[in-house]
Amino acid sequence: MKIIDKINSRISEKRPFFSFEFFPPKTDGGVHNLYNRLERMAKLEPTFIDFTWGAGGSTSGLSLELSRVVQQYFGVDVMMHLTCTQMPLDKIQETLTQCQEFGIQNILALRGDPPQGGGEWKPCEGGIAYGSDLVKYMRSQFGDYFGIGVAGYPEGHEQSSDKDECIRFLKLKVDNGADFIVTQLFYDVEEFFNFKERCLSAGITVPILPGILPIQNYSSFKKFSDFLKIKVPDGITSELENIRTDDEAVQKYGIKLCAKMCQELLNRGVPGLHFYTLNLEKSVTAVLKNIGLIDESVSSRVLPWRPATVDGRRAEEEDVRPIFWSNRPKSYLARTMTWDNFPNGRWGLSSSPAFGRWRDHYLSRQAAGASARLEKLKKSLGEPKTFDDVSQVFINFCDGKIDQLPWCEFPVQAETSKIDNDLHRINSMGYLTINSQPQVNGADSTDPYVGWGGAGGYVYQKAYVEFFSSPEKLEVIFKKLDKFPSISFRAVNKEGKIYSNDKKRTESVNAVTWGVFPGKEIIQPTVVDSESFMIWKDEAFKLWLDEWASFYPVGSQANDLIQQIHDNFYLVNIVENDYISGDLFRLFDD
Amino acid sequence: MKIIDKINSRISEKRPFFSFEFFPPKTDGGVHNLYNRLERMAKLEPTFIDFTWGAGGSTSGLSLELSRVVQQYFGVDVMMHLTCTQMPLDKIQETLTQCQEFGIQNILALRGDPPQGGGEWKPCEGGIAYGSDLVKYMRSQFGDYFGIGVAGYPEGHEQSSDKDECIRFLKLKVDNGADFIVTQLFYDVEEFFNFKERCLSAGITVPILPGILPIQNYSSFKKFSDFLKIKVPDGITSELENIRTDDEAVQKYGIKLCAKMCQELLNRGVPGLHFYTLNLEKSVTAVLKNIGLIDESVSSRVLPWRPATVDGRRAEEEDVRPIFWSNRPKSYLARTMTWDNFPNGRWGLSSSPAFGRWRDHYLSRQAAGASARLEKLKKSLGEPKTFDDVSQVFINFCDGKIDQLPWCEFPVQAETSKIDNDLHRINSMGYLTINSQPQVNGADSTDPYVGWGGAGGYVYQKAYVEFFSSPEKLEVIFKKLDKFPSISFRAVNKEGKIYSNDKKRTESVNAVTWGVFPGKEIIQPTVVDSESFMIWKDEAFKLWLDEWASFYPVGSQANDLIQQIHDNFYLVNIVENDYISGDLFRLFDD
Repeated sequence: MKIIDKINSRISEKRPFFSFEFFPPKTDGGVHNLYNRLERMAKLEPTFIDFTWGAGGSTSGLSLELSRVVQQYFGVDVMMHLTCTQMPLDKIQETLTQCQEFGIQNILALRGDPPQGGGEWKPCEGGIAYGSDLVKYMRSQFGDYFGIGVAGYPEGHEQSSDKDECIRFLKLKVDNGADFIVTQLFYDVEEFFNFKERCLSAGITVPILPGILPIQNYSSFKKFSDFLKIKVPDGITSELENIRTDDEAVQKYGIKLCAKMCQELLNRGVPGLHFYTLNLEKSVTAVLKNIGLIDESVSSRVLPWRPATVDGRRAEEEDVRPIFWSNRPKSYLARTMTWDNFPNGRWGLSSSPAFGRWRDHYLSRQAAGASARLEKLKKSLGEPKTFDDVSQVFINFCDGKIDQLPWCEFPVQAETSKIDNDLHRINSMGYLTINSQPQVNGADSTDPYVGWGGAGGYVYQKAYVEFFSSPEKLEVIFKKLDKFPSISFRAVNKEGKIYSNDKKRTESVNAVTWGVFPGKEIIQPTVVDSESFMIWKDEAFKLWLDEWASFYPVGSQANDLIQQIHDNFYLVNIVENDYISGDLFRLFDD
Repeated sequence: MKIIDKINSRISEKRPFFSFEFFPPKTDGGVHNLYNRLERMAKLEPTFIDFTWGAGGSTSGLSLELSRVVQQYFGVDVMMHLTCTQMPLDKIQETLTQCQEFGIQNILALRGDPPQGGGEWKPCEGGIAYGSDLVKYMRSQFGDYFGIGVAGYPEGHEQSSDKDECIRFLKLKVDNGADFIVTQLFYDVEEFFNFKERCLSAGITVPILPGILPIQNYSSFKKFSDFLKIKVPDGITSELENIRTDDEAVQKYGIKLCAKMCQELLNRGVPGLHFYTLNLEKSVTAVLKNIGLIDESVSSRVLPWRPATVDGRRAEEEDVRPIFWSNRPKSYLARTMTWDNFPNGRWGLSSSPAFGRWRDHYLSRQAAGASARLEKLKKSLGEPKTFDDVSQVFINFCDGKIDQLPWCEFPVQAETSKIDNDLHRINSMGYLTINSQPQVNGADSTDPYVGWGGAGGYVYQKAYVEFFSSPEKLEVIFKKLDKFPSISFRAVNKEGKIYSNDKKRTESVNAVTWGVFPGKEIIQPTVVDSESFMIWKDEAFKLWLDEWASFYPVGSQANDLIQQIHDNFYLVNIVENDYISGDLFRLFDD
């Protein structure tokens, strides 16, 4: 979606918004950590996330991949920076075409800095000389497809302090088709509003987002402000001088100062705030909390899962997903990326299109960050000698001691805390849980843990648990099922041998998460259905080999152990249909 | 649907069933009363209802209409009797073709009795001489379309006591394509089982339903048993002789005797019972309760409304209806009769097909019973001189003092009793209510009043009320709406002038009845949606004229009064979206 449209609707709703800027990390591990950080910060619902363009294209490939992954899998709209530095026209053309393919619809059009080593900026052979020309070029080649942002310099450009010239350039960019302006960072609020004044009198009326950099560390702050020739009010300088050696104090001060500044900007009518995060999380999050733009006591989820943001997907039509991938949403998105229609979002009908291959680029070993992810995973899994070692890994995961499993991309959700003890207990019994949700009977739709769908509604969940089990342990519970008529039970091994307690029931589509809202039909975004379970089954069993056994040499004890589990165990899913008075975990009592 | 299929599935499920036979009444009023009786008895969920054929075609037209109306509008499968008496082939062909058009798929094929005046039975010119030939003819002309029942005579046919001959004829009927057998009535259980034996040894293996006539009145019983040459065990005769003058005692005895007999039949493996009701209700219902085939403490509704049984409609696909017609289901069925698909049953998509004209034959003034219905309605409505008189009519209806309104085909539902006082109160305030449902927060799906969908589920309702209001009274509540954020409010007058408190909310489809069941998606069978409300609006306003004003001469005080209400009032619907802690009727407090 175009960011300008979101900005305009927020302005008309008078709801202030914010956005985050990141840069491509230099190392593989850095990329992996950034993905985890992006995962968390995406939950704060920024209006967009933008990635800087590797100066001189040094890390430009990574900029493109980060943008693609976040746009396609994180449910956040991305704005990718694009500079003219060392970019001949054909390379620009190629990059923008790729963006189109990836569903990246927003570009921050920049001239860019001089290549490393500095010196005077020069356009490359057959390149573009000005940001305004880049905007013009994009409009001429891609028409209205892209939303285009451009940079504004409240205190003049570092390479030209002639403020009027800057405004003339800016006007030209806007006249050529830029949709909105993001400003250089500043610490003197008056500088911003003077700039805004000058824009207005020059006839620039598009939205202007102030660029905000919370001071997080004295030396980096000094470096930036000097390099960018940013005016720093004396008060700030002196305050900082006093605490310059105390990093923590500097950070605290930076947060306080930044929150005060943001509040003033909002009070004086700024529609939203653009944060230069420097890939850091803590300060920005703290600032947003201080000024009340994020309230963790209220759920802001639209649905229990994050809808896709790829246009081709017609995300607005997708309103139901099988529960099986809830801990591997990217895999699900990758496999269903080609589905461009979800008739009424009803699973029953969307089951026709075949699931795609489940390995998407982001997760595959080749992808940036992937090897670091697998390294980390391997460390978490250790080198099991016995089944107890394996089961201990699952216990550690649900105790939060390790933060991923082959089947779970993220640490356990706060939501499940209600059933942590039960999960711990059944894992100790040797049932290896990989997915679950607690029972919810009409919780407020703004509940911080289980809420979704906005205020005024009630949400419900049927208790669900999914795990691997040995045939012997499977039999133990299977025998008990007669005493639990309200439970739907389904088990399958890698060959597809099935046990279920009620074929009719387990063959149909079981809604396990639903919500009731004013003036709406019942929304049922999460289902358990046999059809997709059989597809998930293949993926789930394959993960034993690809992301566990493969970490050990063939023939080693650990490799054999995992291989045996893969060969013999059953994947089991259990739904307690009585979400009011049922208790799924009683099934595991003796 | 073919009755034989229902019979066979019941047999395989070992669930005994029952059916009711009625005959076409002689008078218009009789037809009207029969329709009301059928309405009630249909709720007992008989496997089928059958109508006798006017002997000699005397009331055959009425047989056909009764069959059509019940098949199309009452949600019960019908078996129509068809006899050869005075029916030339072309007339038989024509009748069966009409049955096909009406969706009547079951025929009881009979030779029939001699025409009134009696004497020897003779086939008419170019007619058919035997029931077996009628069966053969039907199969030759209509293949498998019809389910065909035939009559069996445990004690021999009244016109031939040669039991073996009867069996030979019966065998022939079955060989020619009959699906099952309904027996002549009997009071000696052994006679039935002997008959069954003889059938078996003759190679007749189709299901045999015993014909049951509870003794309701001494003289009619005597007449029947003598005319049909039915053997009556001495015990019964003597018992009856003692109480013959005491009708009530006879009826009580008849119920006791019949229940005992039915119980024995079921114990000895009879799959179901066929009742000759003689158009009477009390005895048959009492018998069924005694033997536990109907349990009014448990809801047996599949959905909150009775699904259609017309094949063309693909009833199984219909799982949602707008609430507006819930008191006029036949009108709704008539208007949507041509809809042969309900995409996912979702209202959103089924809104495309245009609603048909709302007057169907059953309701129209020409239909048998209609004029009597309108006479009765006219009496209930009286001749209002003032608005208070009008409002008193609505009060009387919700107090159960009158049992219909132009907008309500039946008396108030037991379900609404929870809100009777509130309805009474707001009607006393001058709001004329025509539709409502109480709030339900997770009631057991077998609840006798609000339950549906079978055991093991929970059902929900948002409180709903619909009424006519003067512009002045409308303004009173409209002003209060800010204090009731969880209410969806929509009012429209006959010209289509609309008031609503939240366009977005009232424009969308609001599920007001839904159920949560094991292993299923959420079922939401009743919705409030603006699109169909505007169509219902036209029907609702027209009823003021067609079924009220028109009862009085033009220019009369009553006629003017109703005309003015029609011209000036608003039709209002209100949904309390907070079905857990909301209270719709507080809107009417001062």
